[in-house]
Amino acid sequence: MDKQKGIETLFRPNSIAVIGASATKGKLGNSVVRNLLDSGYDGRIYPVNPKGGEILGLQVFRSVGDIPGDVDIAVIVIPARFVLEVVEECGEKGVEALVVITAGFKEVGHEGQEAERKMVEIAKQYDMIVQGPNCLGIINTSEPYNASFAAGTPEKGIIAFASQSGALMTGILDYSLMEKIGFSKFVSLGNKALLDESDFLKAFGNDPDSHFILLYIENVTDGKQFMEVAKEVVKKKPVFVVKSGVSEAGARAASSHTGSLAGSDTAYTVAFKQCGVIRAESISELFDIANVYDDMGLPAGNRVAIITNAGGPGIITTDACEGMGLEVAQFSSDTIDYLKERLPPAAALYNPIDALGTAQPEDYTVCMEAALRDPNVDSLIVLLTPQAMTKEAETAQAVVDTHQKFPEKPIVTVFMGGNSMVYPRIVLNEAGIPVFDFPERAVNAIAELYHYTVLRDSLKDETPPKFDVDKDTVQKIIREVREDERRVLLGHEAHAIAEAYGIPVAKIELATSSEEAKQIAEELGYPVVLKIASPDIVHKSDVGGIEIGLQTPEEVEEAFLRIVENARDGRPKAIIYGVDVQEMAEAGKELIVGCSRDVQFGPLIMFGAGGVYVNFLEDVAFRLAPMTRTDAKALIDETKISTLLKGVRGEPPSDVKALEDTILRISQLVTDFSDIVELDINPVFAYEQNEGVSAVDVKITISG
Amino acid sequence: MDKQKGIETLFRPNSIAVIGASATKGKLGNSVVRNLLDSGYDGRIYPVNPKGGEILGLQVFRSVGDIPGDVDIAVIVIPARFVLEVVEECGEKGVEALVVITAGFKEVGHEGQEAERKMVEIAKQYDMIVQGPNCLGIINTSEPYNASFAAGTPEKGIIAFASQSGALMTGILDYSLMEKIGFSKFVSLGNKALLDESDFLKAFGNDPDSHFILLYIENVTDGKQFMEVAKEVVKKKPVFVVKSGVSEAGARAASSHTGSLAGSDTAYTVAFKQCGVIRAESISELFDIANVYDDMGLPAGNRVAIITNAGGPGIITTDACEGMGLEVAQFSSDTIDYLKERLPPAAALYNPIDALGTAQPEDYTVCMEAALRDPNVDSLIVLLTPQAMTKEAETAQAVVDTHQKFPEKPIVTVFMGGNSMVYPRIVLNEAGIPVFDFPERAVNAIAELYHYTVLRDSLKDETPPKFDVDKDTVQKIIREVREDERRVLLGHEAHAIAEAYGIPVAKIELATSSEEAKQIAEELGYPVVLKIASPDIVHKSDVGGIEIGLQTPEEVEEAFLRIVENARDGRPKAIIYGVDVQEMAEAGKELIVGCSRDVQFGPLIMFGAGGVYVNFLEDVAFRLAPMTRTDAKALIDETKISTLLKGVRGEPPSDVKALEDTILRISQLVTDFSDIVELDINPVFAYEQNEGVSAVDVKITISG
Repeated sequence: MDKQKGIETLFRPNSIAVIGASATKGKLGNSVVRNLLDSGYDGRIYPVNPKGGEILGLQVFRSVGDIPGDVDIAVIVIPARFVLEVVEECGEKGVEALVVITAGFKEVGHEGQEAERKMVEIAKQYDMIVQGPNCLGIINTSEPYNASFAAGTPEKGIIAFASQSGALMTGILDYSLMEKIGFSKFVSLGNKALLDESDFLKAFGNDPDSHFILLYIENVTDGKQFMEVAKEVVKKKPVFVVKSGVSEAGARAASSHTGSLAGSDTAYTVAFKQCGVIRAESISELFDIANVYDDMGLPAGNRVAIITNAGGPGIITTDACEGMGLEVAQFSSDTIDYLKERLPPAAALYNPIDALGTAQPEDYTVCMEAALRDPNVDSLIVLLTPQAMTKEAETAQAVVDTHQKFPEKPIVTVFMGGNSMVYPRIVLNEAGIPVFDFPERAVNAIAELYHYTVLRDSLKDETPPKFDVDKDTVQKIIREVREDERRVLLGHEAHAIAEAYGIPVAKIELATSSEEAKQIAEELGYPVVLKIASPDIVHKSDVGGIEIGLQTPEEVEEAFLRIVENARDGRPKAIIYGVDVQEMAEAGKELIVGCSRDVQFGPLIMFGAGGVYVNFLEDVAFRLAPMTRTDAKALIDETKISTLLKGVRGEPPSDVKALEDTILRISQLVTDFSDIVELDINPVFAYEQNEGVSAVDVKITISG
Repeated sequence: MDKQKGIETLFRPNSIAVIGASATKGKLGNSVVRNLLDSGYDGRIYPVNPKGGEILGLQVFRSVGDIPGDVDIAVIVIPARFVLEVVEECGEKGVEALVVITAGFKEVGHEGQEAERKMVEIAKQYDMIVQGPNCLGIINTSEPYNASFAAGTPEKGIIAFASQSGALMTGILDYSLMEKIGFSKFVSLGNKALLDESDFLKAFGNDPDSHFILLYIENVTDGKQFMEVAKEVVKKKPVFVVKSGVSEAGARAASSHTGSLAGSDTAYTVAFKQCGVIRAESISELFDIANVYDDMGLPAGNRVAIITNAGGPGIITTDACEGMGLEVAQFSSDTIDYLKERLPPAAALYNPIDALGTAQPEDYTVCMEAALRDPNVDSLIVLLTPQAMTKEAETAQAVVDTHQKFPEKPIVTVFMGGNSMVYPRIVLNEAGIPVFDFPERAVNAIAELYHYTVLRDSLKDETPPKFDVDKDTVQKIIREVREDERRVLLGHEAHAIAEAYGIPVAKIELATSSEEAKQIAEELGYPVVLKIASPDIVHKSDVGGIEIGLQTPEEVEEAFLRIVENARDGRPKAIIYGVDVQEMAEAGKELIVGCSRDVQFGPLIMFGAGGVYVNFLEDVAFRLAPMTRTDAKALIDETKISTLLKGVRGEPPSDVKALEDTILRISQLVTDFSDIVELDINPVFAYEQNEGVSAVDVKITISG
């Protein structure tokens, strides 16, 4: 089945059947037919209802099979118990796409889930795509058609919107009609039985009528697919998302540091960042951004000019710019000279330009032209407060005229006030100039559009490196651990896996007696570390299960006995395999590299400051695997400790290249072996440049 | 001069003279007279203008001296050059308060500043208070009177507002008239020549008509006074502030860690927190909060119930609550049972309550009553989306009725949508129920009101402890350093100061020769540390100016020579006093305690994770001195490292009491000696409980 070809039909149908059409006003089956008629759809509309007759002047067919011509899409609004039968009929009729508005499927429990599964199965047999079930329908303003039971049709515009909450869409539609926000596509995802956010995202990406994509989602169906699709789409147009359900998952059971430091929502945040999607904080922010983009497009950079007739709002705007990663532009000397000649002596010429409370529309024009001509300016914020001599409407007109003269740089206005600003705001709105009532929202919209450009440009067509590794050894160890009916690997097993993937590990061997321990110590060379080997004891130091710096056979022997005794006392029920004897690595910068596994997005790699205090410092960052070298560099750079690795306060720089390699090898390991659900290397010691790193303590847990 | 008595007159004048009154419409002197008449002021109004005649039906006097009766306040709107003379006349006439609207003082440079100073001097001679100059005037809706040139009079309300930006006020006034936000007092601070934000804050605190105080400020005139006043006022009513100019000060030169880690705005943030004032992020947030408070008062706690007719908005609201420190309430079993009996089986009964898309006003009433009756609920958010069967206006009315039945718990509504919500929103507004269009703003307003209650309750009437200290020694050392024309103290001087204030320091003495160094080492006992003693070398380790763990006289001798040579090589121009020999403290938890001095608020104490990496970890918190023990505890608790100090992962807890003492002694030291502009103790080693702390490296810089 080619979903995209199906969506193509869904977006541009020649004929639409409404199965469950009704003549009774207020019924959903009536609303859908009415919306189709009202939206100006010029294809054929076939109402279907066993009762026959006529609905809103259209002939009603008793079944989809009775329709004489082809049917491209069928909108289904009949009770859930009849749906499967009708889907079958649609398949036989050759329908290409189903919009299942009917609720009562997965969302009501097991039985509904089973019906939904069967529906998809039937649809697949007939090569039909399915939107929904349990959705509001679909609206395409460029066709145009409205196959939904929404209370109206949005205005035509450039925004494609898909939402996992139908009710939210009804609110937004209502809001958009009042605020005059236009949409190209308006898609309710419903239960996402077949088509999900990734499918529509891809389709929006290819849709020439959609220039800006907004998503409201509560989860993604397939994390990897979403990221792949998004990476391509964001190259062409901005994608902004509100992802809710942050607190949904609650606390996850996690025994690793990586697992406990990654919140339930971390993978989403990381995924969006890695594929260039901007996560908005709120629905209203989403529309502020869309509104500015619609009117002004993208800023070329982050340097903002600010013009005001009052100091206070200028300062507030400056603060907001700096707080949100924008730069208050430094004007060229030409600009300053130009302004100096034309503004009163008391005016502030440096950015923000304060043209004073007496500023007239002409003064605003002088300032705007100077700022827009300045090569150091990427966008302009025009502030106006209603003072005694202020001409609000004429100043609005001056902004409109100036924008026509300099259409290439975004202008956003903030006309602060109430009644005196109502008409000026209409002037601006009509001319397509974004206008806000307070500065912060204006600044935020510009900032987020700028951040989109930065994120988009940071995406590179780069493939993850493939290191030459020993997969067989890893396979063998995992098989043996499974045979032993364990999930937690012993120290020497975990180290062997890391070693098989080329990670420099401290050598380690399991000793089952103090004699054996001494022997191994002789081989490894003194000093050595002894650690209890038990799958039931994760935090070894808590039970006195680790001794370091052992220098002689006698010390090793005594430590062996002490450790075993401590473990028996501390955890009487733990199964003890012996004691791991490990060579003692020279100390370096203490770091952690780890991995946990996210249900939607797969392996989530963590890097940061390591050691005993990793949970208290919380200086860690995350990326999803498989990672590219650029990802690895960015991951390291996101932590505070990266500054230390560059060498500060007279210290030499660390071997960051070796660290990157370690991260990338871990990325390859957890990508190759989905068995590995948790992995911590803590600490990884990083040494000076060209001296490498050393994985001192590796912990691995496999899936049950 | 009793400023508060003056403001009392300013708030309730029996007579007002307008000096510079004008018959010409559009002139400020005309606007002021017109506003006085329009606002319904029932006292006597005396226009003053040398031309005489009549203005708006009022007799004009040629000078303030010509006015027959008493004049309580004089509003001055004449050009700056005539102001001083008129102020003198006002004084002779016995005017009590001046509102100087006239601009052209401090804000225009040195000459204006001098005139402003003289104005205050004259005013003080005659015991007159001065509001402004360079201000919009003052409005008191409870009197009522409007002595400003604003374009209108705000509605009467409970909010007292003072602003350092007059233009911002004009915008807000305009906005408030449209949004029906009422004010009790509306005060433009202008240049704050005499009366500043603290004076008006105090007056607002005592004003029975003002229940909620909003401030917009760009700086405070007297930090300590502001904090003192605010601490008292917030016990009675909420104080919210927008402080702009965050980026104003730019980078401050700072050689200490404390100085470099404290941003230019840190002192404000800390000061507000320490005196119970909530800092809002934006003006619009300020009014959201005021609006909810005005209608609903304060929530008793942070447990919120959410009712919705759609899942998505419910999830968004839940996320917002958890993100802003509110708790989604856990309903009692009674509530759940009550709902179960009355809602459809598919409804979600646990918070958020999803009454489903079919929810009717009666269903909302059931849910609201259940939630408001539940003892586990402190406030309620009612969400509504416009779905096919939704009765928006009737649901609004149901909220109004329910609130009347349960007036004690705050209700905030979010009616999402556009045109279909216009009338329902009017219903809510008219009945005094706050209504928002999206959930985040509603949640934020409740959260900030809750945070106010927490902050208010955390303020205790506690005095800073007074330790028995040796001030004389400190005085003597500082005098000697000044005589030596230095600002940076040498190690042994700084340690001696800390010791004089009872801080456990590592013993240290200056050696000027390797012989002397060995002698001191013998006295202190091995091992010792050697550190270069030079006021010109702050970061000693950068030049090889420190050697630790020296065990023998030979090592001390060699280290002495090496250190001096390193310092000469690294900093050829540095003046070298010798080498400090210090006993080597046993290692403990590495912490930092420091102090920098803020221009407005005085000594700013820092505590956090110390050691070499303090700037990279940035795990620090701040408080202003003088500090109470509660402050010291809160300061420690604010850092991540405080978790470690409590003892984790098998480690014993640290001596937090000794650490508190050290912080409090430093607080006392920098309060006693304003000479000390920067102080770093890094590291402070904290040992196990009852084993104290040790100040290993003390650095002090005094004022020039």
